[in-house]
Amino acid sequence: MYIVILAGGSGTRFWPLSRVARPKQLISITGDKTMLQRTVERVLPLKPKRIIIITNTLQAMETEHQVAGYQGAHIDVIAEPVGRNTAPAIGLAATIIAAHDPNGVMVVLPADHFIRDEVALRETLVFASHGARNGYLVTLGIVPTRPETGYGYIEAEIELRGEGPYPVRRFIEKPPVEDAVRYLEDGNFFWNSGMFLWRADTILAEIGCHLPALANSLGSIAFNDDVWSFSDLNSQIEAVYGNLENISIDYAVMERSSKVLLVPVEMGWSDVGSWSALPEVVAPDIAGMICINAAEHVSIDSSDCLIYTDNKVVATVGVHGLVIVSTPDALLVCDRERAQDVKKVVEELAKRGSSCL
Amino acid sequence: MYIVILAGGSGTRFWPLSRVARPKQLISITGDKTMLQRTVERVLPLKPKRIIIITNTLQAMETEHQVAGYQGAHIDVIAEPVGRNTAPAIGLAATIIAAHDPNGVMVVLPADHFIRDEVALRETLVFASHGARNGYLVTLGIVPTRPETGYGYIEAEIELRGEGPYPVRRFIEKPPVEDAVRYLEDGNFFWNSGMFLWRADTILAEIGCHLPALANSLGSIAFNDDVWSFSDLNSQIEAVYGNLENISIDYAVMERSSKVLLVPVEMGWSDVGSWSALPEVVAPDIAGMICINAAEHVSIDSSDCLIYTDNKVVATVGVHGLVIVSTPDALLVCDRERAQDVKKVVEELAKRGSSCL
Repeated sequence: MYIVILAGGSGTRFWPLSRVARPKQLISITGDKTMLQRTVERVLPLKPKRIIIITNTLQAMETEHQVAGYQGAHIDVIAEPVGRNTAPAIGLAATIIAAHDPNGVMVVLPADHFIRDEVALRETLVFASHGARNGYLVTLGIVPTRPETGYGYIEAEIELRGEGPYPVRRFIEKPPVEDAVRYLEDGNFFWNSGMFLWRADTILAEIGCHLPALANSLGSIAFNDDVWSFSDLNSQIEAVYGNLENISIDYAVMERSSKVLLVPVEMGWSDVGSWSALPEVVAPDIAGMICINAAEHVSIDSSDCLIYTDNKVVATVGVHGLVIVSTPDALLVCDRERAQDVKKVVEELAKRGSSCL
Repeated sequence: MYIVILAGGSGTRFWPLSRVARPKQLISITGDKTMLQRTVERVLPLKPKRIIIITNTLQAMETEHQVAGYQGAHIDVIAEPVGRNTAPAIGLAATIIAAHDPNGVMVVLPADHFIRDEVALRETLVFASHGARNGYLVTLGIVPTRPETGYGYIEAEIELRGEGPYPVRRFIEKPPVEDAVRYLEDGNFFWNSGMFLWRADTILAEIGCHLPALANSLGSIAFNDDVWSFSDLNSQIEAVYGNLENISIDYAVMERSSKVLLVPVEMGWSDVGSWSALPEVVAPDIAGMICINAAEHVSIDSSDCLIYTDNKVVATVGVHGLVIVSTPDALLVCDRERAQDVKKVVEELAKRGSSCL
């Protein structure tokens, strides 16, 4: 099994903890390991042959730094010169794996998701790898626990088919709440996790079919005898990447291929989309308060606040439903219901030419 | 004119900016000079013969440090070994002044008040000094601008007496709101400012009358030929202070003496009793926001917040009516209406043995 971790994402919703050069996957939402490190650690027990982390040049050094300590694991960090969404990143990883082991099963995992039950993930990956080995494009579908309107959904055919894998009927964009409620009731709709398993040659054949230009570019990359030395890979990536189409693997391949199967999984998953998702990751106290990385927290008549500090003494007096984030150079106080709007703060700072980005 | 600044106060309502060893008078509420420095600077144009600052041993070093830069002014810092309220502090200062200049007029000023119109203060002090020179105990009465229930009041006889000074009818503790409304309407009630003028010998005679034990202790202090050298004053203060009664000059003398006169003054005065008094000191923007010492402030749909940072980038999103204070080691987020309860935070931290006091 080869693990491909997509770690090139950027995002502004965890400002001021996250920054341009240190996005969500490179920070520690929970106060200990970073999301990338947790992503790596949860697959290490599967003893993958290689772990390939696809990031970008801006984040490459910090990414290398964060995974330098995993002795015994073969971890390669590959930096895209420009972001081109998931299809080129996955195609590049598949090309590298296929050059060495065409039938190798590759698992694609986002670097910035939270998973409470890591054993369930690993068992599901092992189960799903059989379908991948048999030439299918397998995607993990999260069993929904609420009528969430912030995720994409996948409708599967679950009738009379036991534990899956299930054929996929259609991919659905973020739905209105009425639909989300119905999906939850119907039981054959799953959250689109962005986690995939397939053989390297399977996905490359699908890319050849649905994205011939990308297949052509990737086909021009030449490898040394030792596929994993990457001695001149960077310059080749540089040469082809600028012209690649910016497109997601979901849109380009998954929604069009007839070989897609879904394996459902319940594992306490969250994509931790903003500060307001913190309670999915850390248990609040009885007053609904979460306080991460505080030297001390004094709460007087306060409730439902999400607090993240840089080892400060924090006091809250008579406040409710706030997000409070303190870093050495910045401070955010935000209505919890407005956590999505933190990105507007970053936009405004960018407009002003602030360096606090 | 001699200026006596009472700077030994402690207090917890400006935590986390204020600390035990750095109370309100030694911090900068407005982001520039400290309150003590502003108190000194606003009397310098009066060219006082000496400025005596009474503080305590814990704060003495920082106090000395803050007033070290005033070239040409004669400033003495005297540290009380224990706090004994205002009567002993004022008696000690009067004793020192009287040893050199018995008829000298001394002005007593708290170190932690805000005064917007400093010219009005100085003109009022000059006007009030005539009454002091004639043997009266003159107190400044602030013309009230709202039915404030957090201040003490002084009722004066203002009928047919022009600009004052007015005889004082009585001192009134913090009143219920019905009374405060009536005081505002009646026009002969003034806020008790804690600012006094009298001759050194006058106040010592009054102390002799109303506080004979204090007078006796102070009378035992012996001075060198050069009164202002203080070479062995500290050990003498140490010897007498522990046994002194803890009592305010208001209660011990002002409320009992028949020689009290009041001079009214309008000068944009505030005792800045808590973070919620910040708008009395710094003008809010049109959204009611005050943001002091921020590197940058991004406000999205927020209003009526009082923000004080240690040069941080601050963002507020969808929040209203908060006090937000950030220092290098602590963070406070407090409902503006609950600013009085900041002292409860400090009590709780003390109970836990925190060093952040």
